[in-house]
Amino acid sequence: MNANLLHQQSIVIDGLQTCDWSRSIFEEMRAGGVTAVNCASLLWENFHEGIGYVAQWKRFLRENDDLIRPVRSVADIHAAKRENRTGIIIGWQNTSPLEDKLEYLEIFKDLGVNMMQLTYNTQNYSGAGYLEERDSGLTGFGREVLAEMNRVGVLCDLSHVGETTAADVINLSRAPVCISHVLPRALKDVKRNKPDELLLGCARQGGLIGISLFAPGLKAGNEATVDDYLDAMSYVIELVGEDHVGIGTDFSQDRPRPGPWLLWANRDKGSARKLTEFGSVKISKPQGIARIREFPHLTERMIARGWSHRLIAKLLGGNWLRVMETAWQPAGH
Amino acid sequence: MNANLLHQQSIVIDGLQTCDWSRSIFEEMRAGGVTAVNCASLLWENFHEGIGYVAQWKRFLRENDDLIRPVRSVADIHAAKRENRTGIIIGWQNTSPLEDKLEYLEIFKDLGVNMMQLTYNTQNYSGAGYLEERDSGLTGFGREVLAEMNRVGVLCDLSHVGETTAADVINLSRAPVCISHVLPRALKDVKRNKPDELLLGCARQGGLIGISLFAPGLKAGNEATVDDYLDAMSYVIELVGEDHVGIGTDFSQDRPRPGPWLLWANRDKGSARKLTEFGSVKISKPQGIARIREFPHLTERMIARGWSHRLIAKLLGGNWLRVMETAWQPAGH
Repeated sequence: MNANLLHQQSIVIDGLQTCDWSRSIFEEMRAGGVTAVNCASLLWENFHEGIGYVAQWKRFLRENDDLIRPVRSVADIHAAKRENRTGIIIGWQNTSPLEDKLEYLEIFKDLGVNMMQLTYNTQNYSGAGYLEERDSGLTGFGREVLAEMNRVGVLCDLSHVGETTAADVINLSRAPVCISHVLPRALKDVKRNKPDELLLGCARQGGLIGISLFAPGLKAGNEATVDDYLDAMSYVIELVGEDHVGIGTDFSQDRPRPGPWLLWANRDKGSARKLTEFGSVKISKPQGIARIREFPHLTERMIARGWSHRLIAKLLGGNWLRVMETAWQPAGH
Repeated sequence: MNANLLHQQSIVIDGLQTCDWSRSIFEEMRAGGVTAVNCASLLWENFHEGIGYVAQWKRFLRENDDLIRPVRSVADIHAAKRENRTGIIIGWQNTSPLEDKLEYLEIFKDLGVNMMQLTYNTQNYSGAGYLEERDSGLTGFGREVLAEMNRVGVLCDLSHVGETTAADVINLSRAPVCISHVLPRALKDVKRNKPDELLLGCARQGGLIGISLFAPGLKAGNEATVDDYLDAMSYVIELVGEDHVGIGTDFSQDRPRPGPWLLWANRDKGSARKLTEFGSVKISKPQGIARIREFPHLTERMIARGWSHRLIAKLLGGNWLRVMETAWQPAGH
């Protein structure tokens, strides 16, 4: 089977994108053969804005239903594949829209939010982000939030979460969790990358590690190619096993850098102090997988490495499917 | 000079009350000869509810202007004394109404909120409360909130704040801070009481410790009398010096226990897990100072101890005046 055919036949899941959504992005998702995407451009939003984010997706889904469809279950992802559309998983990179109301979690699950990162970069009511100077782990409220995610069936994401908080979640969660877009610190020692121990913990607990295209986390930085990306993926497969690795591109297409959205993203809570320079420095995606439409190139380079079709199918989407199947199941069903 | 005359002539400041405000409470404040009160019944409220709390006070102040007057400055407290009214300091026991917006702090200062406790019992964006299992101290956002309190002139209160977070505030604040209603752990080893070290730190930094009437923090518990209260005050005076001690009664008159308000107060964020049994167990105020109208009895018992008029004047309100004068001054003025 050639690469294109394998790619076309596979279920391809992108564990996280933060694009400035529009019809042209949805067209690229189709051109790239992407079956489903965790669409998680929500970073600091509060309750009202969180409702607005869902409402915006209702409109996108209505106006572009030739290209995209909603995903609330794994069956919806299979349906997207059959229909030749891209399934939209509504996701968050922060639990900020819950504000201080535990009971809002079920409200948002009902509205179709199926993936939530517990914290984004700094401290919130549930725990610390990776840029918080000190991390005392999951708070009392955070334990309740996690239990509620487990109960109603929301997949918990730990990518930007602080390490102590993330370890607490892995220890306490009754459902598998994910680190949707991450790179291994063993290959490049930067704060945003995660240590082996945490990647292993996530995998042992049944979860998934989505390998990210974020250049500052790759050894070659802005000079990286798709092969450097696959080297990082390879390292994590060796570490945690082939059943616990997937893709989480972190594509942020149509978000100019520098530009207002990324500058907002890089301030604590959107308007307090600047946390990193990521909002204004040049960051390139690896050559060969620089845009959503280049997704088939990934499959091609995997085949070039001699990886089996079975392994490639797991990495492209099979592993994500398994974790979503388990985590989206409400407890007791 | 007899006790009644001394009380009448003194400026009497209560560092914290959480009553269910009404005209009958304001009448008792007058009967008790109270010059000014930090009215801090705000515990878990969000931005909208925080605005509502201020708006409610505008109405109370309008409808009861024969008994009470607004306080935005120390001059307003002196005016209240001259006018034979009680000055209302609008205060909060949580920075929850700021939500995630640093810039709301100046908005609320403009609206007359002059005292803010950084956290109430659990973790918020700024730091941990004393009932949070782990306390990693002031967060990055919390440092910004504190700097903003210093800049615009809001007095920071640490009573329900976690010990590490409180120590960070004391170290970093450019203005004196207070522990508005507290008892010494040296006399009764319960979590809500504060250790000597923290009381000393607060005083050394120029701040004030308001001694509370909260029975679970007194050795004699519900059997305590006004003299047990003065013993606790005496201990803190010995420890930190007579310039850093005042009164913070924590009167919560017209709040039935058990009752909906106290049960709400004792859940994390009002609707998550129950934090303590304080919402439903019997808690008595010390005999002799069980109600606001008994305030003059405090002065009487101070005189009976042979305390000088000068010392009594400091304890009743003089020390509070000095700390408020400094902390309410916007930085650079």
